[in-house]
Amino acid sequence: MEHSFIAWAKQRAARLPKVKLGIGDDCALIGFDSLDSAQADLAITTDSLCDGTHFILTECGAQAAGRKLMAVNLSDLASMAANPIAVFLSLCLPKENAGDLASGVFEGVYELAEKYRVAIAGGDTNVWNGPLVIHMTAIGKVALGGNWLRSGASPGDAIVVTGKLGGSILGKHLSFEPRLELAADLHRLGVVAAATDISDGLGVDLLNMTVASKCGAEVALDLVPISDDAILCAQKSGRSPLEHALGDGEDFELLLAVPKENLHKLPSEIGGIPLTRIGTFVSRTGLWSKDKTGVKQLAPRGYVHGQ
Amino acid sequence: MEHSFIAWAKQRAARLPKVKLGIGDDCALIGFDSLDSAQADLAITTDSLCDGTHFILTECGAQAAGRKLMAVNLSDLASMAANPIAVFLSLCLPKENAGDLASGVFEGVYELAEKYRVAIAGGDTNVWNGPLVIHMTAIGKVALGGNWLRSGASPGDAIVVTGKLGGSILGKHLSFEPRLELAADLHRLGVVAAATDISDGLGVDLLNMTVASKCGAEVALDLVPISDDAILCAQKSGRSPLEHALGDGEDFELLLAVPKENLHKLPSEIGGIPLTRIGTFVSRTGLWSKDKTGVKQLAPRGYVHGQ
Repeated sequence: MEHSFIAWAKQRAARLPKVKLGIGDDCALIGFDSLDSAQADLAITTDSLCDGTHFILTECGAQAAGRKLMAVNLSDLASMAANPIAVFLSLCLPKENAGDLASGVFEGVYELAEKYRVAIAGGDTNVWNGPLVIHMTAIGKVALGGNWLRSGASPGDAIVVTGKLGGSILGKHLSFEPRLELAADLHRLGVVAAATDISDGLGVDLLNMTVASKCGAEVALDLVPISDDAILCAQKSGRSPLEHALGDGEDFELLLAVPKENLHKLPSEIGGIPLTRIGTFVSRTGLWSKDKTGVKQLAPRGYVHGQ
Repeated sequence: MEHSFIAWAKQRAARLPKVKLGIGDDCALIGFDSLDSAQADLAITTDSLCDGTHFILTECGAQAAGRKLMAVNLSDLASMAANPIAVFLSLCLPKENAGDLASGVFEGVYELAEKYRVAIAGGDTNVWNGPLVIHMTAIGKVALGGNWLRSGASPGDAIVVTGKLGGSILGKHLSFEPRLELAADLHRLGVVAAATDISDGLGVDLLNMTVASKCGAEVALDLVPISDDAILCAQKSGRSPLEHALGDGEDFELLLAVPKENLHKLPSEIGGIPLTRIGTFVSRTGLWSKDKTGVKQLAPRGYVHGQ
């Protein structure tokens, strides 16, 4: 229901005062002097994680859940090339063990706050008769020279992904590193036209990007970088490693549009993270796969929690 | 556990980059040009509400829960004299009926967003195997002339409350009006030295204010404005109406410190909401009650969810 609700909410919210960029991208953008000024100043994102859905508390513990919450929010900021400045943490804690859970989650948040020098500026704690639910809102400053949007891709731009994809359920969904440093480096190079992070799966997130950019995308299947964990998952799932790389959620890698004329300036890796060209944005709308058998429609089988 | 956790988290967060005002007041304050510049620009607050704790979904419905979420956040902004500009909504929706619940909550948020001209700028939806949990972060601009803090009260200042207190469980905890307009009017008058909103109960919130302000407070019990609902509650609870007015949570009225020399400029009501002087901040720390029998220590029996 997420997409239909977001579309409805976006339309409904349009009658309210507007910000520079509202519902629909990885972050909202707020101009400071004037809320909707062309010059956006702040990027703001919010995410909730629920025990049993986004993490299994009894398996990973509260600290890993807190670290994931922080990493998910920072990944949204990275995908807009925004620099995180402050986060707000809100906890709904089960009655049993509320204090230990609160400090555990906080320590996980702290780990990345310390690493990326982000203020933990406020929050809210609640004790309730339910499982652990943790929320965060993260605020970043838009990098000099403007932020990245999902909607900036044009036909002809290369589709580029960071890292390797698929199988994050084996551990990376908890331990991944938000691509903040890589995004800052790429932003300085000025080579990226559009970006998002891969949270619902390469297929779904690429489709979202093409819809926002009013174009299509053609993926060269043999170029998609497949993680070792995607191969491990495939051994049990009966699906191919490629299907895992295309469909698994929570890779939290960046998906980028790089105009052809910038490709010569694109490094093949940054800080050990490979940057891989996997295809091209095209004018024909929709998702397309290209391999030796030809061009076919590609179904965006992503993973969306709770669906 | 909330207070001990907040104290611990505040100390732990102190090693991270700082904002102008971090953990501990109704909102955080962030300077825009420099995070911790003396000139704070943005007030930010975050709150979560859980089905079964802050609202009973089967009794009140999703729209009333959404309205309350918005009102609680706006109340925090009002207590800092900040003007709301944008809110972010994050939903954890039970699988059954997720779409209807999402739009119901949104409509409740929308009601106050429209009234107070606030942007609904973004959010997050999740479907899970648990009850409805709704979360909001609200962002406001600090009013010209500076915000109010909890820590600004001095001995000799009058203790002033808006509205009437107690018994909000009979309905006001859902239907209350955040005191934004009243706060803006008072702020223009320049008469307030410190403020907070009454969320945990007059006794607890007054004590928090005295601790933040490093002073004490003496309450004239016969001056505390008692709501009709506090009287109704007393008929069933075996406690007095005054005890309800002092101890019940979720009044979401404002609690203010007004310096003696400003009292002549303080209106007795604004927009039909009475402003009542109920005592005086004093140098002797602690909470004290004053009536015809003399001065006694006052136990801050507030209501804290889940305790």
